[in-house]
Amino acid sequence: MDGFDLNITIVGLGLIGGSYAMALKELKPKNLWAVDIDKEVIEIAQKKGFIDQGYTDAEIPLKNSDLVILCVYPALMTKFVKENMDFFKKGAIITDVGGTKETLIKEVNSFLRDDLDFIGGHPMAGREYKGLSFASKDIFIGANYMLTPTEDNKKENIALIEKMVKGIGCKNVMKISPQKHDEVMAYTSQLPHIMAAALMKGVKEDTHLFVAGSFRDATRVARLNGKLWADLLIDNRENTIEKIEEFEEYVKNIKASIINKDHESLENIFEDARIKREEFIKKCQH
Amino acid sequence: MDGFDLNITIVGLGLIGGSYAMALKELKPKNLWAVDIDKEVIEIAQKKGFIDQGYTDAEIPLKNSDLVILCVYPALMTKFVKENMDFFKKGAIITDVGGTKETLIKEVNSFLRDDLDFIGGHPMAGREYKGLSFASKDIFIGANYMLTPTEDNKKENIALIEKMVKGIGCKNVMKISPQKHDEVMAYTSQLPHIMAAALMKGVKEDTHLFVAGSFRDATRVARLNGKLWADLLIDNRENTIEKIEEFEEYVKNIKASIINKDHESLENIFEDARIKREEFIKKCQH
Repeated sequence: MDGFDLNITIVGLGLIGGSYAMALKELKPKNLWAVDIDKEVIEIAQKKGFIDQGYTDAEIPLKNSDLVILCVYPALMTKFVKENMDFFKKGAIITDVGGTKETLIKEVNSFLRDDLDFIGGHPMAGREYKGLSFASKDIFIGANYMLTPTEDNKKENIALIEKMVKGIGCKNVMKISPQKHDEVMAYTSQLPHIMAAALMKGVKEDTHLFVAGSFRDATRVARLNGKLWADLLIDNRENTIEKIEEFEEYVKNIKASIINKDHESLENIFEDARIKREEFIKKCQH
Repeated sequence: MDGFDLNITIVGLGLIGGSYAMALKELKPKNLWAVDIDKEVIEIAQKKGFIDQGYTDAEIPLKNSDLVILCVYPALMTKFVKENMDFFKKGAIITDVGGTKETLIKEVNSFLRDDLDFIGGHPMAGREYKGLSFASKDIFIGANYMLTPTEDNKKENIALIEKMVKGIGCKNVMKISPQKHDEVMAYTSQLPHIMAAALMKGVKEDTHLFVAGSFRDATRVARLNGKLWADLLIDNRENTIEKIEEFEEYVKNIKASIINKDHESLENIFEDARIKREEFIKKCQH
């Protein structure tokens, strides 16, 4: 990629960090480094050529990095920035890939050095597996990517992140406020994950013999990373509770129509869902 | 297929009826006929060779059919059998593909001629589209198929249906009571469809820009056939309400854990869901 002559450090070589490394390598940055607490993971990433060099200690790579991408658990993001504050290169850009934004950005900006620029990011990409062994540069292809810049961020830095994100294959790069991001995510991501987990609850020994695609699809993401999702839901709890309660209302309406044998109302509800789904999926494909 | 030298009539050339016709043709029955109120659909099916001959009037094919497969809307099944009672060939087997079983089988058996044998069936196969143009013989490949025989059914007739169903590619043929069928379906099919419809309710103009796979998968079946699903849910309302309420309980528990910022409880809930989902999908694949 033109104008991508940067030193980049990825912090955390899990599924997203690993995928990011693979995808960035193709853009030929000056140097691509990684920090991880797991030596084995670093060795694998080095051997496979996803990164130029890996470190368990952040100091050296951070001191020389123009761009740092945080791919650790949400609860660790703030901690990492705080503990390594002195090591960041003057004027460095920091971004992250976490699933919630408002608290993180507020917290980080409360102690961030003036010369540093923290730009929140969230790739709407992932898999229902965790760890480097499931990483793939392709997870970004066609994905949505959200950036949550604030007034504190420099325009040229936002533009750089946007360019990089498009460079690794993302389709829609949306710039929205951290608040709006968290509100939307509660609905489009937290809610379906909660539904999937709740649907699994009733599974018995022989349930697999009685299912079709509807159940399998609705529960795909029930293969959750519990620690990550507990973090996310607690962090974004106000929005999530609001969305759960809206959902509970809808279900209550459907239930009432079933109890009242109200065929017309049910048909209308489902017809409405069908039309919305058709329009939605058409938009997704464009 | 050996020993499949029968005259068969399919009633209703929609998605399932059409797919059934295509799949049965490969088993080389003596004659494969179809009944549909839509002349155009019959012409297409004849032209494409899915059936040997189609009729808008059921009398002629029924008089000569050893096996009749009802692929019409649930609400029409009973009506069709009742209105055409005099036309069925002596000793004919009748089966259906409807999504609920208890009421149907009770009703049909209350007026069925003694020489006829009605064996309830339900292929766990489908698509989120309706009509003959989306039919495909492949929808049965690897699918689960439920049969709900009762004491009234002849063993050799049950065996014949089972053989046919395996012949068109179904993997697990489960024989369960109509009551058990409806109870299980309320959970594995009605519930995920209701969830999908309820999830779509909050979709806005720009939601597609903020989604990842979790939302798309969870709402795939929201492209519902409203008439069919209103029929199914009202018919199976007691079981469905019970399953909705169990689900509401699970969601309430998750909500409480989020409100209480109970990280451990959330992690346990999700860990449980993950393990269940992993075991479940392994079983599905075997």
